[in-house]
Amino acid sequence: MAHAISYSLKELTEQLGGSVQGNASVCVTQVASLAQAQSQHIAFLANPKYREQLASSHAGAFILARDMVGVTDKPCILADNPYTYFAKVSTLFNPPLRGELGIHERAVIHPSAVIGAGVSIAANVVIERDAVIGAGSSIAAGSVIGQSVQIGTNALIYANVTIYPSCVIGSNVILHSGCVIGADGFGLAPEAGRWLKIPQIGRVIIGDDVEVGANTTIDRGALDDTVIHDGVKLDNQIQVAHNVHIGEHTAIAACTGIAGSAHIGAHCTIGGAAMIFGHIEIADKVNISTNTLITKSLPKAGTYTSALPFSEHSEWLKNAVQMRHLDSMAKRLRALEQQLASMEKKND
Amino acid sequence: MAHAISYSLKELTEQLGGSVQGNASVCVTQVASLAQAQSQHIAFLANPKYREQLASSHAGAFILARDMVGVTDKPCILADNPYTYFAKVSTLFNPPLRGELGIHERAVIHPSAVIGAGVSIAANVVIERDAVIGAGSSIAAGSVIGQSVQIGTNALIYANVTIYPSCVIGSNVILHSGCVIGADGFGLAPEAGRWLKIPQIGRVIIGDDVEVGANTTIDRGALDDTVIHDGVKLDNQIQVAHNVHIGEHTAIAACTGIAGSAHIGAHCTIGGAAMIFGHIEIADKVNISTNTLITKSLPKAGTYTSALPFSEHSEWLKNAVQMRHLDSMAKRLRALEQQLASMEKKND
Amino acid sequence: MAHAISYSLKELTEQLGGSVQGNASVCVTQVASLAQAQSQHIAFLANPKYREQLASSHAGAFILARDMVGVTDKPCILADNPYTYFAKVSTLFNPPLRGELGIHERAVIHPSAVIGAGVSIAANVVIERDAVIGAGSSIAAGSVIGQSVQIGTNALIYANVTIYPSCVIGSNVILHSGCVIGADGFGLAPEAGRWLKIPQIGRVIIGDDVEVGANTTIDRGALDDTVIHDGVKLDNQIQVAHNVHIGEHTAIAACTGIAGSAHIGAHCTIGGAAMIFGHIEIADKVNISTNTLITKSLPKAGTYTSALPFSEHSEWLKNAVQMRHLDSMAKRLRALEQQLASMEKKND
Repeated sequence: MAHAISYSLKELTEQLGGSVQGNASVCVTQVASLAQAQSQHIAFLANPKYREQLASSHAGAFILARDMVGVTDKPCILADNPYTYFAKVSTLFNPPLRGELGIHERAVIHPSAVIGAGVSIAANVVIERDAVIGAGSSIAAGSVIGQSVQIGTNALIYANVTIYPSCVIGSNVILHSGCVIGADGFGLAPEAGRWLKIPQIGRVIIGDDVEVGANTTIDRGALDDTVIHDGVKLDNQIQVAHNVHIGEHTAIAACTGIAGSAHIGAHCTIGGAAMIFGHIEIADKVNISTNTLITKSLPKAGTYTSALPFSEHSEWLKNAVQMRHLDSMAKRLRALEQQLASMEKKND
Repeated sequence: MAHAISYSLKELTEQLGGSVQGNASVCVTQVASLAQAQSQHIAFLANPKYREQLASSHAGAFILARDMVGVTDKPCILADNPYTYFAKVSTLFNPPLRGELGIHERAVIHPSAVIGAGVSIAANVVIERDAVIGAGSSIAAGSVIGQSVQIGTNALIYANVTIYPSCVIGSNVILHSGCVIGADGFGLAPEAGRWLKIPQIGRVIIGDDVEVGANTTIDRGALDDTVIHDGVKLDNQIQVAHNVHIGEHTAIAACTGIAGSAHIGAHCTIGGAAMIFGHIEIADKVNISTNTLITKSLPKAGTYTSALPFSEHSEWLKNAVQMRHLDSMAKRLRALEQQLASMEKKND
Repeated sequence: MAHAISYSLKELTEQLGGSVQGNASVCVTQVASLAQAQSQHIAFLANPKYREQLASSHAGAFILARDMVGVTDKPCILADNPYTYFAKVSTLFNPPLRGELGIHERAVIHPSAVIGAGVSIAANVVIERDAVIGAGSSIAAGSVIGQSVQIGTNALIYANVTIYPSCVIGSNVILHSGCVIGADGFGLAPEAGRWLKIPQIGRVIIGDDVEVGANTTIDRGALDDTVIHDGVKLDNQIQVAHNVHIGEHTAIAACTGIAGSAHIGAHCTIGGAAMIFGHIEIADKVNISTNTLITKSLPKAGTYTSALPFSEHSEWLKNAVQMRHLDSMAKRLRALEQQLASMEKKND
């Protein structure tokens, strides 16, 4: 991604805060890792335990925590939080790569669709009847925007995304390739050995500033809506079932599954590969560990886990087989305790 | 999804059975949840423990179990099974949203393909050489139907589905967006530190009335076919490996994986996030719990589980570490029992 | 997949080695399983325990291990490794099904893209600015090749694949439908209860002879690149996070997730549904079992496991509940041992 953006350290601190140590007129053109950086790059160090990497880095400048003043002779920006500062610098150098402004002649847009100003709509995008695309939004090749979908402003929809009819997508939302918004929830009623399909007539409502990872699926509600609140961040290959609610600014790592009608609080962190049962309530500020299965409501904040420690295989087998005897072991342990207590009594 | 379908309770019971309590000429235009329903809606109550929600609901009518007669003054339909009755009412009000009849000018159809009557084929659909599309089927934008694929009648294929060459899809099948039918199975032979690819020359055969969720993948067989029998329902993000067979009317929840050549019976329920080993046989009417790993054949019906209970994290750590000592604990327990038995003998 | 390729056993052994037992002029036109084979087919038997299937098979010829000479009257090829021999025979009969040579008139190719000789580019493929497609590569319908992507020679890209800008794909790579190469890694920095997005400016670099399964996702690096080395084989629905490295000829089964910056060695086998923590190092020749969570570096070769044995459900519940008491059980066991030791001492 070639570009020609350049900032001096002085300009960066004027825009983002922090203070310069050393030559503030030094210019940088991109961020880089300590290991890969060259003289035109600015690197950051958030963790003091890696400070010896500063000496060997070829970066032209660093972003450091304030208490690391003096650890290098090179020009630095001192910041309260080097990582978030770095995120902001990187965002200056790397604005989202939107498509070319305008509507590609090979996009297929229904005449009833309402398209805002300043959009980018790529080749082979299909926008169906009565859809509304907000100003400044960008839709990449092959994405399909269903009937009556509403998309806010400045959304960034990558290639080959599918949005089913009537879903609502907020502003500044990012949808990565292959994600599917609004497919039918898994609603079935058994009758005489067969499954009747329950029509899924709710929608998916996605708030502002949400990011949805590649090949993640969010199902439409059965009757009411599935709701993803503002600022939620979903990684790749997450499954969100019908009528789930996810609270503001919750972040969920890849491969997690959330069953129907689970309500997850705000400011939670979950996964990856966690599984959440349906019809439960998870409080705000809950952290769920990788590979953990949550089977009931979590009414208070905290960290919850059910992931197992691994072992070398033959070792594991010996121990795992005992899983099938835990109840018996518990009973035998209790019997021994009683037996011993009665022996002690006799002996006294 | 605007529509203007209206039924009186009398008309509903004439078509679907059940009996009306109260004013049978009341008309409803849509189903809704008890909480969201307005006067033009019909809601249902299957679980008597939520009966107090009836009083506060604004629904114009209810579907109730026969033994709930008299719990409300509003007009009701009494049915043997309110949930399946509701499913049928909802299906009347919400027929599947098929695309516009006809073939969009921007579809790309090979001249050798055979297209049935009354189909809907959307923009950017690609139908390759010798494919056959049955009458009344609907294929949404961006889907790719490979060479010699056969699709039955009234199938509903959502946007951005991919079907590889030679696969066979039954009638009334629903394929949700992003699902991939017929990609190569993971067939590799090791040779001198490298992997030789085994060509995957079987097909995927999908029966009638099957539904496949968003981003689910079903691999083609290595030599023989992968077979999904009539009435199977697959949720999102399921992986079905080569040469798997899934029996009639089995339903599988999201994120489940089924390894190669596993044969699963009819009328099973599985998952989500279950994992099934390859080359095993699972009987009819088996239920496999969420997050459960099935490592060997299950010759008889029943419910099988290996999912762990979670705990608060620090609590979990203390317990989980003992997983690595279970074999030793079992041995020590046995030693204690023997020691105690010999002491008791001595004391006698 | 109709075809008219025919080989005599003599021709096969001239090309692939091995020796013929019986009539070497017998011709076969396709491989098949023992059960399905007809007289024009060649079948293989790698596992001697299935040798009774030879008698009932209608195959015209067999591929057998050398020590099975004489077990059948039918013509055979005797090979050191019947399975790899079969793989090679099957590859002769079943060359990859590439699209028609040439560029479909409905492909959308930016004029700055560089397209090699002998390519097949299907309808609705989109190739963006400055992309480079190597000679002999085949790209199926609906795939989107981002800006400045480089693809080597003889790559085979199935329908509806997405490759984000600047990624590099080697020669002879196979990408299955729905896979997404180069979406943003899940890089977030917390600030005041919100998540700042860290721009993901690394690339995905995929070596030669790599195969990527359907709906697998490989994220671009945060600063440096995500690297998949030569000969790696990835099954379906695998998630590879940013800055992961996977060493040469490692094979990973479906539904596995690998967290950010994990470095996996060469010649490993992993999964399915394994989960690998981020920022760890896994040595060459490590095998990780199905459903296993790897939480720390594995510095030496071996097999590692954390998957649980399942039980019948009610049995499982009784045992699983004890998971929450393991620490207490361990303490009580120790107490009993001490108590008993002191009693024995007293008794002596």
